[in-house]
Amino acid sequence: MSEIVLTSNQYGKAENRVVRIVRDTDRHEITDLNVTSLLHGDFEAAHTEGDNGHVVPTDTQKNTVFAFAKDGIPSPEVFLLRLADHFTSEFDWVTGGRWSAEEYGWSRIHDHDHAFFRNTPETRTAVVVRDGDKTTVIAGFFGLTVLKTTQSGFVGYPKDKYTTLQETQDRILATEVATRWRYNTTDVDFNAVYDSVRDTMLSTFSQGYSKALQHTLYQMAEAVISKHDCIDEIKFSCPNKHHFTSDLSPFGLENPNEVFYAADRPYGLIEATVLRKGAVTADAAWVGIAGFC
Amino acid sequence: MSEIVLTSNQYGKAENRVVRIVRDTDRHEITDLNVTSLLHGDFEAAHTEGDNGHVVPTDTQKNTVFAFAKDGIPSPEVFLLRLADHFTSEFDWVTGGRWSAEEYGWSRIHDHDHAFFRNTPETRTAVVVRDGDKTTVIAGFFGLTVLKTTQSGFVGYPKDKYTTLQETQDRILATEVATRWRYNTTDVDFNAVYDSVRDTMLSTFSQGYSKALQHTLYQMAEAVISKHDCIDEIKFSCPNKHHFTSDLSPFGLENPNEVFYAADRPYGLIEATVLRKGAVTADAAWVGIAGFC
Amino acid sequence: MSEIVLTSNQYGKAENRVVRIVRDTDRHEITDLNVTSLLHGDFEAAHTEGDNGHVVPTDTQKNTVFAFAKDGIPSPEVFLLRLADHFTSEFDWVTGGRWSAEEYGWSRIHDHDHAFFRNTPETRTAVVVRDGDKTTVIAGFFGLTVLKTTQSGFVGYPKDKYTTLQETQDRILATEVATRWRYNTTDVDFNAVYDSVRDTMLSTFSQGYSKALQHTLYQMAEAVISKHDCIDEIKFSCPNKHHFTSDLSPFGLENPNEVFYAADRPYGLIEATVLRKGAVTADAAWVGIAGFC
Amino acid sequence: MSEIVLTSNQYGKAENRVVRIVRDTDRHEITDLNVTSLLHGDFEAAHTEGDNGHVVPTDTQKNTVFAFAKDGIPSPEVFLLRLADHFTSEFDWVTGGRWSAEEYGWSRIHDHDHAFFRNTPETRTAVVVRDGDKTTVIAGFFGLTVLKTTQSGFVGYPKDKYTTLQETQDRILATEVATRWRYNTTDVDFNAVYDSVRDTMLSTFSQGYSKALQHTLYQMAEAVISKHDCIDEIKFSCPNKHHFTSDLSPFGLENPNEVFYAADRPYGLIEATVLRKGAVTADAAWVGIAGFC
Repeated sequence: MSEIVLTSNQYGKAENRVVRIVRDTDRHEITDLNVTSLLHGDFEAAHTEGDNGHVVPTDTQKNTVFAFAKDGIPSPEVFLLRLADHFTSEFDWVTGGRWSAEEYGWSRIHDHDHAFFRNTPETRTAVVVRDGDKTTVIAGFFGLTVLKTTQSGFVGYPKDKYTTLQETQDRILATEVATRWRYNTTDVDFNAVYDSVRDTMLSTFSQGYSKALQHTLYQMAEAVISKHDCIDEIKFSCPNKHHFTSDLSPFGLENPNEVFYAADRPYGLIEATVLRKGAVTADAAWVGIAGFC
Repeated sequence: MSEIVLTSNQYGKAENRVVRIVRDTDRHEITDLNVTSLLHGDFEAAHTEGDNGHVVPTDTQKNTVFAFAKDGIPSPEVFLLRLADHFTSEFDWVTGGRWSAEEYGWSRIHDHDHAFFRNTPETRTAVVVRDGDKTTVIAGFFGLTVLKTTQSGFVGYPKDKYTTLQETQDRILATEVATRWRYNTTDVDFNAVYDSVRDTMLSTFSQGYSKALQHTLYQMAEAVISKHDCIDEIKFSCPNKHHFTSDLSPFGLENPNEVFYAADRPYGLIEATVLRKGAVTADAAWVGIAGFC
Repeated sequence: MSEIVLTSNQYGKAENRVVRIVRDTDRHEITDLNVTSLLHGDFEAAHTEGDNGHVVPTDTQKNTVFAFAKDGIPSPEVFLLRLADHFTSEFDWVTGGRWSAEEYGWSRIHDHDHAFFRNTPETRTAVVVRDGDKTTVIAGFFGLTVLKTTQSGFVGYPKDKYTTLQETQDRILATEVATRWRYNTTDVDFNAVYDSVRDTMLSTFSQGYSKALQHTLYQMAEAVISKHDCIDEIKFSCPNKHHFTSDLSPFGLENPNEVFYAADRPYGLIEATVLRKGAVTADAAWVGIAGFC
Repeated sequence: MSEIVLTSNQYGKAENRVVRIVRDTDRHEITDLNVTSLLHGDFEAAHTEGDNGHVVPTDTQKNTVFAFAKDGIPSPEVFLLRLADHFTSEFDWVTGGRWSAEEYGWSRIHDHDHAFFRNTPETRTAVVVRDGDKTTVIAGFFGLTVLKTTQSGFVGYPKDKYTTLQETQDRILATEVATRWRYNTTDVDFNAVYDSVRDTMLSTFSQGYSKALQHTLYQMAEAVISKHDCIDEIKFSCPNKHHFTSDLSPFGLENPNEVFYAADRPYGLIEATVLRKGAVTADAAWVGIAGFC
């Protein structure tokens, strides 16, 4: 008799690289996604007995992604919502799942009708989590590196016997933004809100004096939630990409914050979650979204 | 007045690459870690006001890691437990945290006293989560690729209009094992149990007929929990690394499972958590450990 | 007595990550380089005897890079030329070398004075090769992914018993451009020419019908050499990033080049060198520039 | 009229991931290769006119790789030699080419008949270059990280105004060996010699006192050439993976080479070519093998 129990589990097909071209007119459009489909439900017998009667093949999930792409991809979120509806309605024992996508941005070459180049530094992300009747949509991006050459400092921190860091009123602040935000509705113009959130974050980062990366991230969250009624929660996971002032004194040179060494490791890591006051949390929906506290 | 609230947050210094040599005798020993220290506690003012009075600098955390290494690293888990004790006792407002490490394995070159080569395919992981009085230790590894050339099949799955996959009684089964297991105590010979878990997983993978990757992972979990009283929970996140039989028929050749194309993407993804029957779950401790459901 | 001889060799410090801020006015400028310095000359005794009398330490090379950055970085090429002059004049036995850099592009956030984001898809490259009195400057970039949704085909190729590919008059053409071009002079406005070359390549890629990736690359080379008298030679190393039409017929759907699967491996690889008619080759300068035939 | 000429060029299919299982008995064997086929010859019209009459499709090259795998893969070198023979004999205008492979090593799990795990730290490489009647075979590997905890120093180097490095008689020496060696014949037991070369390099690295990485690499080359009559030339491209002694003095601790910080960038880079005395060089064969001077 088994002394173990299967608890949380999910499975599916990861990283389906689907490119959709709209060519109804001479001016083509391109959408470039990396789609992952993971099903939740009653799959216990597959684990305990090797009985695959409930295991919708990952290959079938892949086929479905490509077949559905034929009908168009208005936004990653809308596409994933359709996948969620399909799998939970088609198979009784599929009670939920987690559908996610990365989107890669393309720009037209000199406004050309059918020639493009990949021109977006960040990767857009979208996740739809379905749990019975409950649907959660989480958008985000990663890979957007931002930097301020001044108007950043770090002072007033506690000192102990292992402290050697010197306080500074002027340093480079740099981070690579990874962020996710949770919508409180599925009735959203996802592409427009995405652009607005990204723009709001960039603007807020650039403004004012940063007393700590924590301080700046919180301001970015506040600005986004203030402007977007459809967003209830934001998470950040951001490295403090250290730029150390190069010590040029052995060579008789001063270095008033002009020459920096950009370090790889170790790096500071700042993670924070900000919730709209009074909003309901949705912790279960975040499980399995890697890399955020 | 702010319409937002700070909820979960953590910060610290990530990826401190510390190498510790024991050279008390001519026969040296090497330990090679990548250590991340993340603090939990009352850091609200840093976010809302930019008041760093509670922000133990990430640089101080780094210094502490290197200073503590001087006293030796008996195992990653023991080293992280000491960091947890230090930070939570030294600073009143640090009520917990998450300390983690990767360990890279080295072997002696021809049993040499002080010459080594990196010879372990997998990366060992260790995490210590402290929350007030509660301490959780989670061990694991990733990057161990295993493969069976036969004794694996996939049949009996549901078919719908998007199903094109053919059933098979003989295929290659290959995966890259990423796994984490949770101890129910800190009184463990962590290095010995690590070796035993790894060995048990390899043995179980190789034995018997696999009806699905889910089936095999569950057997691996069962074997580990049966053999190790100190382990209460195991998670797997494993790609099904597809090896497709190459179609050689256009060239007049048969291919009875001899020539395969190893595909990159998409890939199946199987995630499962297995709990010792009657054991208490510890979901909070798993938050922030990326990539497991 | 040794039965071997040391032939080609070089050494130095690789990947010095130097960031230079110009802050003479409130409107700051940023230059972000990854610099490698490799010396050529008489280093035989270091190899054969372990006599380091000629080995200018790689640490000294690093220090020199950061110290020189203090004087400004008008362009990667000019900065590298200065390094070449320094090392070959300072040390008698250093008869040449290879100095290279990657440059990462930053854009202002909303035209802000001191806030930036990394916004350039490609990485710019520069190499200065010095061999005695001869100096060669090679510029380039990698990582610029371009794609045409139509106006590309592949027909008329030879067929043998291993040919299964179908001819097509309409396919996606996509590649990630890696290119290097050699200047015939050091008297160049390197930043302006870089922008012009990149723009010329993008324009040429977008125009006309592509009969093969070879055909398109050759046209790109021709356009660049025609427009820029200072350039004598261009190399390309470009993957054919296959976008396969997804077979939707099992699901009763047509797919007139609308839904594609973007494959990872294998990929076509096209490499070509184009020389200005009558120009002198400089093969020795290309040795050690990885990844071009 | 064109003002440009096509000079060197090659094309083909890169990274064909072919896995070959030998299952003639219950004790299976596995060979795991990543094969690239690049053709040389008369492909000018494809570039200048888009005339593909000579362009053996990269898809056909892929098919050939998989079809030939059916007949077995005794060693990567023998497999590549067969591809070279095929393409140069089958198509008049294909006058040569460059066929290369990476091989990934697998070990049996507890000596099991058909269960394996990937257990080799380094990646084996093989290249066959054919130019008319001339055939060159180059073997090698990369990714083998080795380290000595003592018996390494660096002294006696020249000092200038940019020198801050302190001499040391005792440091960690660590590198990740990338090496290629050229055979002077095709009549070789390639697998046996590979094992012997790798073993010789490891042994030599571990022995004696290293006065510089250059010194150690040269000794490794000498040992390999002395032992293997079939090898005429060896190249190394090896980073000096710096392990800096952590400064623990601010915390009142001594650090007699016990605690190290393993740095990422910048790193020393040492490249050297060693030739058997009296052997004929073969520079053309090395063109296009990335990353060696």
